[in-house]
Amino acid sequence: MDISTIIGVGGCFAMVVMGIFTSGGTILTYVDIPSVLIVVVGSYLGLFTFSNISTSIGIFQTIGLTFKIPNYNENGIISKLMAMSEKARREGLLALEEELEDLDDEFMKKGLRLVVDGTDAEIIRGLLETELNQIQDRHAGKIGVVNMWGTLAPGLGMLGTVIGLIAMLKNLEDKSALGPNMAVALITTLYGSMMANLLMIPWSGKLKTHDANEAKVKEMIIEGILSIQAGDNPRILATKLLSYLNPTDRKSAEAEFLKD
Amino acid sequence: MDISTIIGVGGCFAMVVMGIFTSGGTILTYVDIPSVLIVVVGSYLGLFTFSNISTSIGIFQTIGLTFKIPNYNENGIISKLMAMSEKARREGLLALEEELEDLDDEFMKKGLRLVVDGTDAEIIRGLLETELNQIQDRHAGKIGVVNMWGTLAPGLGMLGTVIGLIAMLKNLEDKSALGPNMAVALITTLYGSMMANLLMIPWSGKLKTHDANEAKVKEMIIEGILSIQAGDNPRILATKLLSYLNPTDRKSAEAEFLKD
Amino acid sequence: MDISTIIGVGGCFAMVVMGIFTSGGTILTYVDIPSVLIVVVGSYLGLFTFSNISTSIGIFQTIGLTFKIPNYNENGIISKLMAMSEKARREGLLALEEELEDLDDEFMKKGLRLVVDGTDAEIIRGLLETELNQIQDRHAGKIGVVNMWGTLAPGLGMLGTVIGLIAMLKNLEDKSALGPNMAVALITTLYGSMMANLLMIPWSGKLKTHDANEAKVKEMIIEGILSIQAGDNPRILATKLLSYLNPTDRKSAEAEFLKD
Amino acid sequence: MDISTIIGVGGCFAMVVMGIFTSGGTILTYVDIPSVLIVVVGSYLGLFTFSNISTSIGIFQTIGLTFKIPNYNENGIISKLMAMSEKARREGLLALEEELEDLDDEFMKKGLRLVVDGTDAEIIRGLLETELNQIQDRHAGKIGVVNMWGTLAPGLGMLGTVIGLIAMLKNLEDKSALGPNMAVALITTLYGSMMANLLMIPWSGKLKTHDANEAKVKEMIIEGILSIQAGDNPRILATKLLSYLNPTDRKSAEAEFLKD
Amino acid sequence: MDISTIIGVGGCFAMVVMGIFTSGGTILTYVDIPSVLIVVVGSYLGLFTFSNISTSIGIFQTIGLTFKIPNYNENGIISKLMAMSEKARREGLLALEEELEDLDDEFMKKGLRLVVDGTDAEIIRGLLETELNQIQDRHAGKIGVVNMWGTLAPGLGMLGTVIGLIAMLKNLEDKSALGPNMAVALITTLYGSMMANLLMIPWSGKLKTHDANEAKVKEMIIEGILSIQAGDNPRILATKLLSYLNPTDRKSAEAEFLKD
Repeated sequence: MDISTIIGVGGCFAMVVMGIFTSGGTILTYVDIPSVLIVVVGSYLGLFTFSNISTSIGIFQTIGLTFKIPNYNENGIISKLMAMSEKARREGLLALEEELEDLDDEFMKKGLRLVVDGTDAEIIRGLLETELNQIQDRHAGKIGVVNMWGTLAPGLGMLGTVIGLIAMLKNLEDKSALGPNMAVALITTLYGSMMANLLMIPWSGKLKTHDANEAKVKEMIIEGILSIQAGDNPRILATKLLSYLNPTDRKSAEAEFLKD
Repeated sequence: MDISTIIGVGGCFAMVVMGIFTSGGTILTYVDIPSVLIVVVGSYLGLFTFSNISTSIGIFQTIGLTFKIPNYNENGIISKLMAMSEKARREGLLALEEELEDLDDEFMKKGLRLVVDGTDAEIIRGLLETELNQIQDRHAGKIGVVNMWGTLAPGLGMLGTVIGLIAMLKNLEDKSALGPNMAVALITTLYGSMMANLLMIPWSGKLKTHDANEAKVKEMIIEGILSIQAGDNPRILATKLLSYLNPTDRKSAEAEFLKD
Repeated sequence: MDISTIIGVGGCFAMVVMGIFTSGGTILTYVDIPSVLIVVVGSYLGLFTFSNISTSIGIFQTIGLTFKIPNYNENGIISKLMAMSEKARREGLLALEEELEDLDDEFMKKGLRLVVDGTDAEIIRGLLETELNQIQDRHAGKIGVVNMWGTLAPGLGMLGTVIGLIAMLKNLEDKSALGPNMAVALITTLYGSMMANLLMIPWSGKLKTHDANEAKVKEMIIEGILSIQAGDNPRILATKLLSYLNPTDRKSAEAEFLKD
Repeated sequence: MDISTIIGVGGCFAMVVMGIFTSGGTILTYVDIPSVLIVVVGSYLGLFTFSNISTSIGIFQTIGLTFKIPNYNENGIISKLMAMSEKARREGLLALEEELEDLDDEFMKKGLRLVVDGTDAEIIRGLLETELNQIQDRHAGKIGVVNMWGTLAPGLGMLGTVIGLIAMLKNLEDKSALGPNMAVALITTLYGSMMANLLMIPWSGKLKTHDANEAKVKEMIIEGILSIQAGDNPRILATKLLSYLNPTDRKSAEAEFLKD
Repeated sequence: MDISTIIGVGGCFAMVVMGIFTSGGTILTYVDIPSVLIVVVGSYLGLFTFSNISTSIGIFQTIGLTFKIPNYNENGIISKLMAMSEKARREGLLALEEELEDLDDEFMKKGLRLVVDGTDAEIIRGLLETELNQIQDRHAGKIGVVNMWGTLAPGLGMLGTVIGLIAMLKNLEDKSALGPNMAVALITTLYGSMMANLLMIPWSGKLKTHDANEAKVKEMIIEGILSIQAGDNPRILATKLLSYLNPTDRKSAEAEFLKD
């Protein structure tokens, strides 16, 4: 559970509610169902034009990912790759075959199977990089839908306000209704701005970070697999893999993997 | 038929109509023929300056593509390339000639003919990539026209509003006409915003996705053709081609193509 | 004569004039000489700061290009290159020398002279690509000036409106002059928006397309010249060159150049 | 201590305070605690959604870096690398081992240890560049959080103003409260604009410059280490390293390092 | 002296002054010292946060460059490089040493000294490109400061207007002061827009062009030096160098350098 996203989303909405009370209003003043329909539902429906049905429905699952801390298990991967490397140097690359079944990581499994099959290093790199590119393209597609929601929501918010203003201006006789009508017109702008600033823009940023971290781990795996195939010295292998960690993680990992 | 686009466009307009009724107006309040001419027709005519006559007229066909689900037939292509590969390994590259006539895919046909003619691999790659680039340039040109419509429409919407405001301000005596005149002035802003947010921005995004998917399939074909020419092991060929599929499609395709 | 640009520019202005009449104004209401000076002349003078005297004066010539359909004569170029190729294969590269004088295309002439002189392929590619880059840099410079005009015009339009508003606010006593004064202030915004949306943005897009098409033809020439030098099979040469055409042009050109 | 940042931040706020007084207001008119909560705290909480807890809390440390002048000690690094180079040429690469302990710079130490271990040049370059990329990715992540604060603050400022406007419009009866209520509504816009223009945008720019300078020094170290391994002439080494300095620093460094 | 910049800046301000008079105001109406302090001085001080003291103070020198026409002396450089090339082919590369002292261009001098020292071509290219990158990074840094001024000035202009509006709204009683107070509030917006549109945006564009032209000349020098080292035929050298000139300059230079 990513407590940070909960603090962020919850805290921002708390500040908005606080602002509503100190402005002398009540929550009810700011709730308007037609405005929700135009801004939230309208911009969500726009995603069906932009993308396809399954991705549009799946966007809630994508957004759900921002509430989970992904576990890349970098240390486990490094430790597994180092064990593989030692085994390969002792018993030959073919000896890795029996280890493959136990691997959870499909990406590493695929790469090592290619090594066991005696595939050329350049082909292995090409295949794994094509696969990484496809993964990143799929992520970029989903993040693009979140971004699009963050673009369409303020657009529809402004559109709703213009609709309200036109209705109000067409009927200026009842002066006392002027203010409240204009207030209602502005509520769609408020909703659009909240959707973008409090939700979609920060969520999209978090998803991009997740994607970049996953790509980094996959690049580390590619580097490790090719290093195993090349029969690199385990110390070089460890140094290569540890370069992908951030300094704090690396310090502890160095103590573990480069102890001797 | 891409039901998703229909849901998206239809749903967004439904939300706008709902907003109009809950604002106390009627559809007729929001219909103004001169505003349609300035915003919709005006921005469409701007495309003739930006592009040329045939592309400007053809934009409706381009937009029509967003209502169709393209069929790239990836599995059929993989199955065809694998059959070709096996034939080539059994009977030699020249044996592929008799298969060429039956191919529907012009791109694959062209590449395989070059293989049969004994063309150098680097030249084949260069030729097919040049062709892919030309295809993508043409797509980008057409998507650029849709984008431009999405840029010019709000521009002309704002321009129409300024024209209306100036007319109104020049003649402030009749106070009762003030509100309605201003309302009419704002209608062009509304139209411009609707053109951009409900139509052009999402359509342009969908067309970009189509283009990216088509390019991916063409890259897969290039990879497959060069792999056939190089006489790659069919298992390697299948692995290379399957890297281009998304995980769900790949699972079923693996069951089909890597069964043994 | 590019009729498309004329339809575009003429049609957009017609829509604006129509909008003026339906707003109940007259053309004269929207003509204000000082506003023309601030927005049109002011933003044009800003180009002298941005660029230099000759490019700033030459911008009208650059804009004039959007009213002409460029003729790249792709078929003529392909036919010329194929004739050259056949001659070179029959009589040797030196035999091309006598053909050079008749060539109109300076770029092709320069490249073929280098071939006749026996220059190394990598040097020829480098030289021609440097030249193509210089051409594209010059085009980009000129298109940049058109873009800058499209940026500065709305900037100065807004500036003029602020100047007018300040003057109006300083002297609020005469209530009857308020509306008309504000109307005049808004005219600069209108001019700035028209300059950008109806003229500069679409013109700049058309010029970019011209530039991209010219670069494509020049790349085709480079490919063809190097192919001649390498002594490629004419069928390969034709296939390479035809990859640069769009499908409709290619169909007819294939019938012509790959008939046998 | 980076006096420049202090002048910048202090001076900008002084100008704003001056503007407040000359507008006839007092500082207190512009202080509104709920507005601080919405804009400053709200946008800060949004960073928790965008990023994670440790980076969000650590942003103050990141910002603190803009108040320190980083010392890259380029001359010391060049002098160290030249001493290493001379020792290596006199006594062999292994002789560098005894120097490693005294090195403060972890990056240089890691690279030279790889040289001493006899690692292949390409692997060393790859390892050090991977590490440099990781460092720059981490910096970019932190700078991205500062940028995001600069994006969310004006967003929440506008949101706060809309909340205030709606509250005001719902209750128009008390005409005398209209002005002050609207004034309070605008304060959040003011805060958002100040956060972005006076703080986050300039800070982010300064951090980017720091990052670019650090990367330049690290690239210089990579170049130097590989040059030592290759046994380059010290004059060449010095020329390579000095290319990374700016002209003023280089002049004095040339006098020092290329004296003979 | 770059007369073009003087025409541009002078002409734009003349248009603004003209606009002030035709709006019925006087220059004095538009002069407000506190507004100058907030917008011009405030945004200038923001540069100290963004950059460092010496660059912030040096920005006036950077801006001063837009008033000078740089002289790259391309013909002199080509003529010098061709003389060097002929000497080197006649008397050997070492014979260039005696020419080095007379060279004004430090960049060419450095490159040719490396040639005389017998440095490897790849190392020379690397060194000179590193140096060119450093030069361009420094230019980009300075241009970035001009851009930042063009970003902060309208930001502070808007900020000043919000401050003025708040002060005005807090004190609505004196209706007669309303207009003038609002006018003063708008003056900061006017100043910000003038700083950006009339000065910083065009200046920044001119500086970018200067930088690109200087880089082009330096690339030409690198090409020429490596060509001399490779012992290229002088005709090839001339053709390479002339590719970097624009058509008009090239025509006359061709007459001079390729006469025979």
